[in-house]
Amino acid sequence: MSLKALDYDSINENVKKVAYAVRGELYLRASELQKEGKKIIFTNVGNPHALGQKPLTFPRQVIALCQAPFLMDDPNVGLIFPVDAIARAKHYLSLTSGGLGAYSDSRGLPGIRKEVADFIQKRDGYPSDPELIYLTDGASKGVMQMLNTIIRNDKDGILVPVPQYPLYSAAISLFGGSLVPYYLEESANWSLDIKNLYQSITEARRRGVTVRAMVIINPGNPTGQCLSESNLREILEFCINEHLVLLADEVYQQNIYQDERPFISARKVLFDMGPPWSKELQLVSFHTVSKGYWGECGQRGGYFEMTNIPPKTVDEIYKVASISLSPNVPGQIFLGLMVNPPKPGDISYLKYEQESKAVLESLRRRAHIMTDGFNSCRNVVCNFTEGAMYSFPQIRLPPRAIEAAKKAGKVPDVFYCLKLLEATGISTVPGSGFGQKEGVFHLRTTILPAEEDMPQIMVSFKKFNDEFMEQYEDYRGYSRM
Amino acid sequence: MSLKALDYDSINENVKKVAYAVRGELYLRASELQKEGKKIIFTNVGNPHALGQKPLTFPRQVIALCQAPFLMDDPNVGLIFPVDAIARAKHYLSLTSGGLGAYSDSRGLPGIRKEVADFIQKRDGYPSDPELIYLTDGASKGVMQMLNTIIRNDKDGILVPVPQYPLYSAAISLFGGSLVPYYLEESANWSLDIKNLYQSITEARRRGVTVRAMVIINPGNPTGQCLSESNLREILEFCINEHLVLLADEVYQQNIYQDERPFISARKVLFDMGPPWSKELQLVSFHTVSKGYWGECGQRGGYFEMTNIPPKTVDEIYKVASISLSPNVPGQIFLGLMVNPPKPGDISYLKYEQESKAVLESLRRRAHIMTDGFNSCRNVVCNFTEGAMYSFPQIRLPPRAIEAAKKAGKVPDVFYCLKLLEATGISTVPGSGFGQKEGVFHLRTTILPAEEDMPQIMVSFKKFNDEFMEQYEDYRGYSRM
Repeated sequence: MSLKALDYDSINENVKKVAYAVRGELYLRASELQKEGKKIIFTNVGNPHALGQKPLTFPRQVIALCQAPFLMDDPNVGLIFPVDAIARAKHYLSLTSGGLGAYSDSRGLPGIRKEVADFIQKRDGYPSDPELIYLTDGASKGVMQMLNTIIRNDKDGILVPVPQYPLYSAAISLFGGSLVPYYLEESANWSLDIKNLYQSITEARRRGVTVRAMVIINPGNPTGQCLSESNLREILEFCINEHLVLLADEVYQQNIYQDERPFISARKVLFDMGPPWSKELQLVSFHTVSKGYWGECGQRGGYFEMTNIPPKTVDEIYKVASISLSPNVPGQIFLGLMVNPPKPGDISYLKYEQESKAVLESLRRRAHIMTDGFNSCRNVVCNFTEGAMYSFPQIRLPPRAIEAAKKAGKVPDVFYCLKLLEATGISTVPGSGFGQKEGVFHLRTTILPAEEDMPQIMVSFKKFNDEFMEQYEDYRGYSRM
Repeated sequence: MSLKALDYDSINENVKKVAYAVRGELYLRASELQKEGKKIIFTNVGNPHALGQKPLTFPRQVIALCQAPFLMDDPNVGLIFPVDAIARAKHYLSLTSGGLGAYSDSRGLPGIRKEVADFIQKRDGYPSDPELIYLTDGASKGVMQMLNTIIRNDKDGILVPVPQYPLYSAAISLFGGSLVPYYLEESANWSLDIKNLYQSITEARRRGVTVRAMVIINPGNPTGQCLSESNLREILEFCINEHLVLLADEVYQQNIYQDERPFISARKVLFDMGPPWSKELQLVSFHTVSKGYWGECGQRGGYFEMTNIPPKTVDEIYKVASISLSPNVPGQIFLGLMVNPPKPGDISYLKYEQESKAVLESLRRRAHIMTDGFNSCRNVVCNFTEGAMYSFPQIRLPPRAIEAAKKAGKVPDVFYCLKLLEATGISTVPGSGFGQKEGVFHLRTTILPAEEDMPQIMVSFKKFNDEFMEQYEDYRGYSRM
C-alpha cells in the first residue's frame, strides 16, 4: 500500500528530529495526572499568570479600550477608566488604520517601532533605528525567523550554550542545521569561559561544519546567570573575529535578582567598543512582553532589533515576515506599553510602580527561597538565580538510581523527575531537555509558584528527594560535576 | 573578505526564492506615495477594518472584559456592558488558567477547541473531535506548518490552483518544495476541470516530482468562485486515487454573494461519500476570524482541523507547534466567539445579527458594483465574485502596451498596475503575483472599499483604463484568454 504524505514514515524528517522538552514527556504525563484529578504545580514553563501572577492594571485598561473603542463614546467611561488610560488608548488607535482588527504592516505598526527605538536609545545611550526593529508574535517567532534565514543545510552550525533553552535546539533541527554546543561552567556560577568557545568552534570545523552564528541567553535560561560587561566584550570580540552573527536572547532583561551584575545589552557593549568593531558585528537582539514583571505570555508580543545587517537582507526578512501578514496587533500594543510605561505625574504612575515592584521583589525573594531550599536537600547543589525565572539544581544521582532508570527505559533525570511528579505533583523539566555534560543530571523549575506556597513546595520537594536518595543510596559515590 | 552569515549572498537560498506579491513592488510603491502625501486606496490585502469596516460590537465587548477582568468587580460595569457579554467573558476566563496573559496549551485552549468542534458538527452534520483541532495565529500559520510537515525536499510537489493566493507559492519556496500548478478555467467562471488535475500530476511525475498534496481555496482567492458539491466530490476522488493530502483553505466560507452555490466544506462532502472513502483521505481544513463578516485580521485567530491523520503525525504536529509555545490567547477567544455567536433570546442577539447582515449585504452589493464596473471598461472582462472578497478582472493589453512595459523593464501587468496606482491612488496586485496563463494579464482588487466610495473608485478606474487603452491602442489585437 502506498504511503500517504502525512503518514508518520512519510513526513519531513526534520520535523521528527525536533525535541522540545519544555512540553515533552513530563508535561504530557502531568497533563494526564491533572485530568485524573491530581493537583499539579506546573513549573515547566515560565508562565507567570498561570501560577497566579496578576496582570499590571494600566496596560490591561488601555488594551480593553483599544479593543472596544466605542466605550470611549460612553458618558460613563470615566467612572471605570482613568483618564491617562483613555488618552493612551486614543494614542495607540491613532497609530493604526482600522484599529486592532486590521493587519498592520508585516514589521509591526511604525509608531510602536518608534517607541521601541526610543526605549532602546534610553536604555543603551545610543540611537536606534525603527526601520531595523521588527515586531513579532512573541520572541520565539523572531528567533525562528532568524535561524531560518541563516541556516542553509546541515553543515551550517549555530553555537548554542549548554544548558540551553530548547527553542534553539528545536528550531535548528526543524530548519535542518547543526547545533554546536559550548558548555557553561556550573562550578563557576554558569559563567562563560571564552576558551570553551574557541574549543567548540575548532572542534566543529574539524567535523566540516561552517559555524555561522552564536546564541547567548542573558540572563540565562535555564541557568539564571547574568553576563558581566567584560564577559560580553569577550564574546563580541570572539564573534567579530570568527565572522559570526550574534543572536542575543535578552528576554529576561527586567528579571534581575542581585545588584552586582545589572543587565547590560550586547548592543550597548558593542557600541561602547566603538568603530571599527561597532560597525562590524551582525547582531540581532530579542525581547518580549512575556517575561519581566509583565509576564503577558498569552498576548504573544515581542520584537527583534537588527544591528549591522545589510539592507538587502533586511528586505528579505521583511518579505518572509509578510507571508503571514502581520503579528497580532494587541500584542504590539502591549509591547508599546511595556517600553513606554506611565511616567511620574501620570495618574496611573504610582499604581503601576507599586504593582511592578511588588512582582519583582517577590520574585527576588522566591529566587532565594528556592536556591536555599534545593541546597538543603541531600545530593542537590544549586547556583543562585541571579536573573531570569528558573532554578536549575544539579541532582547527584547514586549509581543504583541510574541503574533503576535504565531498567525502566528512562534517561536518569527523566526517571527522577517523573517520580517527583507522581509523588508531589511538581511538574519540572529534566536537565537532559536543555543539554548538560555527560553523566551529570539536573532539573529545571521556574521560581514562579506563589510566594506563600513556596515554603510548602520546597518541603515537599525535600521530602521526596531525601527519600529517593535514601532508597537508591549505595555508597559508591554519585554523578557529579 | 569573508562573508558573514547575514550578508545577502550568504543567506538561505529558499528565503530569497520566496515571492509574495500581496505586499510586493506595488505595495511598497503605494506606501512611498502615501508617505509623500498621496491618498492611497489600499485594495491589495483583504483587510476590511483598514478600509472602514466596523468591528462587531459583542465580541469586542467580551474581549475587553477578558482583558480587564477587574472591570467585572466594578459596580458600574452594568452601565456600559450588557449582561450577556459579561457572562460570556466569565465563561472564557473559566476556560483559561491565568487569563489572557498565560500561555495556553500549544494546540489552544481545550474549551475553545470544543466550541469549534461543535460548530463544525452543526455545519456539516458529522461529529468533530476537538483533539484534532489546533488553534493558530491566523490561518496562514497553520498552512505553513502543514506544508513544513509535508515537504521533505525539492522533489516533493504540491498541487496549487493557478491563479492562487501567494501564501502557497511563498511557503512552498521557503520550505524548499515544488509547486505543481493546475489551471482554473477563466472562461468557465474559474471552475476546476478535473482533466486539468490529471494532466498536471502526470506532467509533474514525468519531471520526477512526487506529488504529495493538493490545495483548494474555496471560495476562491483571488478568483472568487464557489466550488459545487459535484466538483468537490471529483476532487476528493482524485486525491484519494492519487494518495494526496488535501489542504482545504476555507477561510472565506462566510463570504458568499449568490444563492445558487452555497458553501459546502470538503469535509462534509467526504463524509457524505461514506466509507471506505471517508476513512481514506488525509484532509486538513483551515478557517480564520480574519475574513467573513468579522474581518478581525489584526487579532490573528485561526484553526485547522485534521481528518484521517495518523495519531503519530498529529503528535509531531503538536510537538512543532509547542516550539513557539502557544497561539495568542485573545485571538483564540475571538475564534470561540465566531463559532459560538449570540443566540436568539440573548440580549445582544439582535444587534449582532443586524451588524453581521449589514456587512454581508453590503459586500454582496459591492461585488456587483465592481464586476459591473470592470465589465464596462474597454478591454476588461471580469467574472462575478461569487464568494471571498476579491475581484480578478482580465486586462487585455494591446501589444504596444506590452512593448512599453518591456522597455520599462516591467512585467506587463505590473506596468499597468503601477500606472493605475500613480494615476488614481488605487493599490492593486498584478495578476502575475497569483500566477496566470502565459500571455494573459489580470489584477486583483478587494471588494472592500466603503460602499459609498465604490462608484467613484470605479469611475476613476474606468477613466484611467480607457485612457491607457486609448494611448496604447494599435489595432493588432490583444492579449486574451
